[in-house]
Amino acid sequence: MKRALGVCYYPEHWPEEMWAQDAVNMVEAGISWVRIGEFAWSRLEPKEGLFEFDWLDRAIATLADAGLKVVLGTPSATPPRWMVEKYPKMLAIDDQGRPRMFGSRRHYCHSHAGYCDAAAVMARRLGKRYGRDGRIAAWQIDNEYGCHDTVLSFSDAARDAFRNWLAQQYQSIDALNRAWGNVFWSMEYANFEQIELPLLTVTEPNPAHVLAFRRFASDQVVAWNAAQVRVLRPLTDAPLIHNYMGRVTEFDHFALARDLDIASWDSYPIGFLSDRLEGDALHKARYLHQGDPDMQAFHHDLYRSLNGGRWWVMEQQPGPVNWAPYNPAPMPGMVRLWSWEAFAHGAEVVSYFRWRQVPFGQEQMHAGLRYPDDTVAPGLEEVRQVAEELAGMPEVVPAQAPVALIFDYASDWTWKTLPQGADFDYFRLVFEAYRALRRQGLSVDILPPDVADLKDYRIILAPGLAQVSDALQERMTGSSARCLVGPRANQVTPDLSLTVPMGPNLENLDVTVRRVESLPPGTKRPVEDGGAVVHWAEHLDGTADVQLADYDGRAVLVGSGSIRYLGGWPDPALWERIIGALAEEAELKLTPVPQGLRLRDTGSHRFAFNYAPEPVIWEGHELPPAGVAWWPLP
Amino acid sequence: MKRALGVCYYPEHWPEEMWAQDAVNMVEAGISWVRIGEFAWSRLEPKEGLFEFDWLDRAIATLADAGLKVVLGTPSATPPRWMVEKYPKMLAIDDQGRPRMFGSRRHYCHSHAGYCDAAAVMARRLGKRYGRDGRIAAWQIDNEYGCHDTVLSFSDAARDAFRNWLAQQYQSIDALNRAWGNVFWSMEYANFEQIELPLLTVTEPNPAHVLAFRRFASDQVVAWNAAQVRVLRPLTDAPLIHNYMGRVTEFDHFALARDLDIASWDSYPIGFLSDRLEGDALHKARYLHQGDPDMQAFHHDLYRSLNGGRWWVMEQQPGPVNWAPYNPAPMPGMVRLWSWEAFAHGAEVVSYFRWRQVPFGQEQMHAGLRYPDDTVAPGLEEVRQVAEELAGMPEVVPAQAPVALIFDYASDWTWKTLPQGADFDYFRLVFEAYRALRRQGLSVDILPPDVADLKDYRIILAPGLAQVSDALQERMTGSSARCLVGPRANQVTPDLSLTVPMGPNLENLDVTVRRVESLPPGTKRPVEDGGAVVHWAEHLDGTADVQLADYDGRAVLVGSGSIRYLGGWPDPALWERIIGALAEEAELKLTPVPQGLRLRDTGSHRFAFNYAPEPVIWEGHELPPAGVAWWPLP
Amino acid sequence: MKRALGVCYYPEHWPEEMWAQDAVNMVEAGISWVRIGEFAWSRLEPKEGLFEFDWLDRAIATLADAGLKVVLGTPSATPPRWMVEKYPKMLAIDDQGRPRMFGSRRHYCHSHAGYCDAAAVMARRLGKRYGRDGRIAAWQIDNEYGCHDTVLSFSDAARDAFRNWLAQQYQSIDALNRAWGNVFWSMEYANFEQIELPLLTVTEPNPAHVLAFRRFASDQVVAWNAAQVRVLRPLTDAPLIHNYMGRVTEFDHFALARDLDIASWDSYPIGFLSDRLEGDALHKARYLHQGDPDMQAFHHDLYRSLNGGRWWVMEQQPGPVNWAPYNPAPMPGMVRLWSWEAFAHGAEVVSYFRWRQVPFGQEQMHAGLRYPDDTVAPGLEEVRQVAEELAGMPEVVPAQAPVALIFDYASDWTWKTLPQGADFDYFRLVFEAYRALRRQGLSVDILPPDVADLKDYRIILAPGLAQVSDALQERMTGSSARCLVGPRANQVTPDLSLTVPMGPNLENLDVTVRRVESLPPGTKRPVEDGGAVVHWAEHLDGTADVQLADYDGRAVLVGSGSIRYLGGWPDPALWERIIGALAEEAELKLTPVPQGLRLRDTGSHRFAFNYAPEPVIWEGHELPPAGVAWWPLP
Repeated sequence: MKRALGVCYYPEHWPEEMWAQDAVNMVEAGISWVRIGEFAWSRLEPKEGLFEFDWLDRAIATLADAGLKVVLGTPSATPPRWMVEKYPKMLAIDDQGRPRMFGSRRHYCHSHAGYCDAAAVMARRLGKRYGRDGRIAAWQIDNEYGCHDTVLSFSDAARDAFRNWLAQQYQSIDALNRAWGNVFWSMEYANFEQIELPLLTVTEPNPAHVLAFRRFASDQVVAWNAAQVRVLRPLTDAPLIHNYMGRVTEFDHFALARDLDIASWDSYPIGFLSDRLEGDALHKARYLHQGDPDMQAFHHDLYRSLNGGRWWVMEQQPGPVNWAPYNPAPMPGMVRLWSWEAFAHGAEVVSYFRWRQVPFGQEQMHAGLRYPDDTVAPGLEEVRQVAEELAGMPEVVPAQAPVALIFDYASDWTWKTLPQGADFDYFRLVFEAYRALRRQGLSVDILPPDVADLKDYRIILAPGLAQVSDALQERMTGSSARCLVGPRANQVTPDLSLTVPMGPNLENLDVTVRRVESLPPGTKRPVEDGGAVVHWAEHLDGTADVQLADYDGRAVLVGSGSIRYLGGWPDPALWERIIGALAEEAELKLTPVPQGLRLRDTGSHRFAFNYAPEPVIWEGHELPPAGVAWWPLP
Repeated sequence: MKRALGVCYYPEHWPEEMWAQDAVNMVEAGISWVRIGEFAWSRLEPKEGLFEFDWLDRAIATLADAGLKVVLGTPSATPPRWMVEKYPKMLAIDDQGRPRMFGSRRHYCHSHAGYCDAAAVMARRLGKRYGRDGRIAAWQIDNEYGCHDTVLSFSDAARDAFRNWLAQQYQSIDALNRAWGNVFWSMEYANFEQIELPLLTVTEPNPAHVLAFRRFASDQVVAWNAAQVRVLRPLTDAPLIHNYMGRVTEFDHFALARDLDIASWDSYPIGFLSDRLEGDALHKARYLHQGDPDMQAFHHDLYRSLNGGRWWVMEQQPGPVNWAPYNPAPMPGMVRLWSWEAFAHGAEVVSYFRWRQVPFGQEQMHAGLRYPDDTVAPGLEEVRQVAEELAGMPEVVPAQAPVALIFDYASDWTWKTLPQGADFDYFRLVFEAYRALRRQGLSVDILPPDVADLKDYRIILAPGLAQVSDALQERMTGSSARCLVGPRANQVTPDLSLTVPMGPNLENLDVTVRRVESLPPGTKRPVEDGGAVVHWAEHLDGTADVQLADYDGRAVLVGSGSIRYLGGWPDPALWERIIGALAEEAELKLTPVPQGLRLRDTGSHRFAFNYAPEPVIWEGHELPPAGVAWWPLP
Repeated sequence: MKRALGVCYYPEHWPEEMWAQDAVNMVEAGISWVRIGEFAWSRLEPKEGLFEFDWLDRAIATLADAGLKVVLGTPSATPPRWMVEKYPKMLAIDDQGRPRMFGSRRHYCHSHAGYCDAAAVMARRLGKRYGRDGRIAAWQIDNEYGCHDTVLSFSDAARDAFRNWLAQQYQSIDALNRAWGNVFWSMEYANFEQIELPLLTVTEPNPAHVLAFRRFASDQVVAWNAAQVRVLRPLTDAPLIHNYMGRVTEFDHFALARDLDIASWDSYPIGFLSDRLEGDALHKARYLHQGDPDMQAFHHDLYRSLNGGRWWVMEQQPGPVNWAPYNPAPMPGMVRLWSWEAFAHGAEVVSYFRWRQVPFGQEQMHAGLRYPDDTVAPGLEEVRQVAEELAGMPEVVPAQAPVALIFDYASDWTWKTLPQGADFDYFRLVFEAYRALRRQGLSVDILPPDVADLKDYRIILAPGLAQVSDALQERMTGSSARCLVGPRANQVTPDLSLTVPMGPNLENLDVTVRRVESLPPGTKRPVEDGGAVVHWAEHLDGTADVQLADYDGRAVLVGSGSIRYLGGWPDPALWERIIGALAEEAELKLTPVPQGLRLRDTGSHRFAFNYAPEPVIWEGHELPPAGVAWWPLP
């Protein structure tokens, strides 16, 4: 496994006379990759048609001369002011009908053809100039799709494109009316031009309407990205990359990744803990300076699947950030820990955001590896340490994990559209399963529902997966694994009407869901002998073996052999029982770990990471807070 | 007392070949009424002027042939898409100035003349075709006025109609300026055309302006309904009904009911507990699967007054719903309990929503009596039981309750407009009084403030009633009852300026309110010897006998003889003391009941309902959770 | 020290036949000033160009004849309806892009030239008629600038004016682009016309953009006020006053005051406690009927600085108000306490809002000194007592306080723009320092950062001051005081980019801030030997003496001699330690007071005020709740 360090750099932010020394300093710190250009449109084309690439030529030369490989970004995430003057309708419209204005970034609607073309023209310019330039060793297209809630846009362009998309999907308005059940509440349409985007309705719009819009919106992101891929592919052989965000689920990353070569993501553990994770105050206080122990690994394992195992961390948090509600500093050692955790999960490159904190603009309070006065920030010392450790570390062999966890973007859209309980969230459900697995010391692969091969897994979980296809069931039962689906498996069609009867329609498992109930916070259905169902409880019917039941005798987990159906949302204690039972049948050894310790096995080594604020001794290794250890597997 | 069961049915949702068996199954379950048609406009008139009644003819025939009586709904709550194309300005505008778009239901402004006429034209078409058809035994006009916050609309149509309404009310702009006190803050108008709707003002608008708008808006709903009544009356002799909602107070139900024959309402006990009732977490967890023990009875007693005692439950919750933040399932037995509670309070018909859960549209997760696959859902078993019990139950005689509680929609608007404390809510105040009465085992009649006759009551409460008219005072003092008014009695004029001095201006009771104060949650004024004033405390002046005082010696309850004035908002312990004292003077026996048990006396029987999650033994009868019992009164 | 009482009066609200008796009653109660006219535009100019001053002439005559001095208000806070018809674009636009409509008050944008001119024309009319009239002893311009969030407006007029303002500030668009760092995210502009107001951006706008807009908005308020000053100055010799609000920080009061003669403010202690102060439930319940013990004094001490010590309370709460979420009544004695507290802090006049509660309009529930029926309300009794006490009270000599606390409006805008932690609030930080000083019995002067002279102070605190200028440092070190700056001192430039290195750049104090972190509620960094850092923690570097450090050995307070740098936000216990240490070095005696007791020393007397709900004995004086005492200083 080839591993390297990188850094994000903005030559346009700094005097040209600093570039050469910066490059030298990067190399000296053990960095070999540098990403540039992704926000520089106003410098590359200050006026429409006036292109200025000279400065970029010189920047690339300076960086490459020092020995760095360059990732060049297309700047479409930051259309300049003149572009918005040219295309005022390119701005996205929010779900209250308001334009999302110029003055920050990502101020465009993915459905606006004029701007999509303009972005492709810019990509072509860059491709023509640098596509065959060996110093450009990779490309990044756009930046953080979906960040700042930018997938759904309610613009005129989106509305028109949605109508076209619907016409293609359904062919006739009668088919759409039937598929959506528009006879309900007299919502029937006479033609596609009558269909508006689902906003500001008196009460909730038809969920079929909303889900179609979400599917469409995801397709628009994929198409938007593909437009730049189309122009770059003929012009370069370097790999094409996008940098995804954490817990952005509004577009299908698997679908988008098909057009790219390497997945990457932007990992901000402390910002994410504050900004986008459930958790009680104690949990958030405990991990305040470390980040959640599972959030990073979850995304590593997820994004590893997007392009056949090729993935990077494109932006790694190097110190305090600026954008979360609260922005504490990382505990000393965490930058190293996060870096090693990424490598342990298979990253090729860990690239830090950013070389030097720039003292202006929206992110002036966002740390870099160097302070604005060019002195060394704490993160850089840890980067150096990682570089040295990488150099001394023997090859580690990637390996399939014993556990597969299915993640499906469409399921997220489905349950966001039809939550039925205010706190039903698909990502949260899958993430809690992931955490439960990791608390048993397990390594996990996170896979899409259409994964081709599952046969060597010992446990396969697909919690909350909306569509459990026949093909997936076959692959599950064709494996030697113990598999679990549910809750909410096959309860709705892809168009979002209920299946009749209401799922899960599993081969060789006689179970039907009769009714469901959502439970408010603070209430639960205790399960016999320990654990409880929270948030979501189903009433199951059928002859399938009951493995777990609540105190009213209602089945919670049914099935035997290879497939189980889970009729509720488990609390942590119940997840532990479920995983314990599956592992026992699968003859898979569990390694329960102390709170905050996490393990990751590669083919050759076991890695241990201590997210806890107290030291841990594990398998003979002493890990201080923020400690990392690895040793060969037997 | 004639009592029957009904069900809501949507033939347009199901294949025609299912209709006949559905009808047979309804009758077999003991159902005799079926409501249809109220959302079917897109099937009755798929294009403007293209009417298709054949399917409805066949549906009616099929249902009637099985022995069912039909309630036919006018479909004006769901104008079809083409109607909105024809009248884009028919959409209501919300209080942020945004249109409330097509795509769900109730997407119309009550002030839009074009759509009002169109709805009347449809009603006439239906009336002409079915008005003399004996199989149509009742009509429902529109559906759930006010649901989804649809009374107040800030549209151009509403603005123009409001100006006309004001011109009629005040005759001259000077009169309006004086009545509203527009000299305050230079808000004087030169003509009615200068008056805008009260939205988006810099700080709060003149309360007189807001209250006038609320009165107007209520009148518009009444007029809207009357427009359809006007066309239907000459065409049919069947009774006209509307189905009200729970805790919708934005229009005057008493005023609207004057144009109708039977009141009905849609009772969703578990949804309402989650969605629209105050209550701490313990209360909500305790009644999670039962609903609040007083919410249903309150509305039964209220709506019973609207049309001289003739009232139905038009939609009874049959299982989990879909629209509350959380949607738990009813405890087994609750569908039966709710049904019997309605009958005990005098319902003629209890009609369940809905026959079969439809697997598409907004309410696909809303239970029916049958599952989407046409198997029997738990609710239907309980319906059968109710039907059998009804058949075997001897006639029960309606009777006036010993207690009258006054409820006044205008008071609700008044205190919403001028709350003075953020949590002052009229409905809540009256509801807490109702709960306190019921915890003493009392049966209650809820009456409008202009009720003609009060003389046989033993206790009359009018908490929070804004306008205590001379006529009402006369009827109170002319009765043998102990009466209580206040807080906030006669403190403001109907135009919403303060009375001078500030109320309550009661005959034979020398008490004046000098100043008032609102108290934040968690604070209170304890009353000597028990209980406390919360939310609202008045400083009373005058020579009236002080019955209760706080520890600073400030009077809380004053008066003797027939009328008391209450100068604050009582907590439950204080209500208990107040009711105890009134009952003792009235020689009315109280029957304090255990938490969750409720009683209802008819002329012949006492009914007991156990909402508690634990069993109760009462007067020799054992009531399990969800238990119902009745026995003859001595 | 000349001291007098006043009252706010609205002759236009009352029948003319009441005026004379009202005036007599005012004088009889000990009142000598009366403010009128500030909301009366619709009566002064009912139609455009139709002026009606007769009634005002008569009102002034009536009041003056009784012996009252008149403060005459310009009515520009309440433009009449016809004005908005004439200038529909004069309405402010909120940060969601919505117009802020006619129907209450302050419905204008400070940048609208047409309305600004119209207001000046009205001021000229008034000035010409009454400017040389000796009965008009003072003028009030407009009313409560900034109230109801009316400083920032996103109107077209504001946008155009902002562009002009920017052009003047930066001269060239390149200079602006550089100053704002617009190269970041390609936000560069080609000309000033491309710059929009910072609203509805996809993610946060450039903080430089926002801060410029806030500075501009403050300037617009100052200019708006100056436009009326310009026309009034030549027409009158009476002092010009504005009545500021509590905790309104969106415009620079020091800058605005330069055009005026006397500062005044509107003190609503109980409304403010409920409406605009942080504090846990216990604190708010304890002071529910008294108001916060430091809020009034803070504003007294702040506004005293605006015009060289000349200041009034223009509106003093006389009883319950109507506009806070909850509106409890003052404890008996509090109106007296508040009045005396103002005088103890140097007020010339305490004027009550309002003479008589008017029974209509938005403030009908707002108390006056008399009830709507003209009977005496409790506040008036206390006013009488104050009047008597004033008459018998010997002259008290104003004196400089031993402690100076710097308050800077621009710092508030700076940290609102770049909070970095969701609860970082400048006012709150300074207010907590003020409270800590007062809990040690200290009297305080609150001064602007450009104060000319600081030399006689013993302690000078400038917590959170964004720009610690060289001049201020010189004045600090040139004094004999122990001085404290930080946190966040000199970390950003006035344009809002980071200083490099990141502050504080203090003479003779080697300390640099390397990184900062914001801490969520419930977390803290304990300091060795007591107290903790909350909300905000800095990582300090340098050789300055460490006075206090946290348990990780990180410096929290550094420096010796005259200037200290504070690298965090202290909790109350840490403030106590810091003030204790500074006082000890400054040889300043502290007088720790019981909870709720506050002291104020003039040159001749010590005053004590008991805000606590329990009695306190202090220096031999017994103070009941709401008690006031004073005695000569030795």
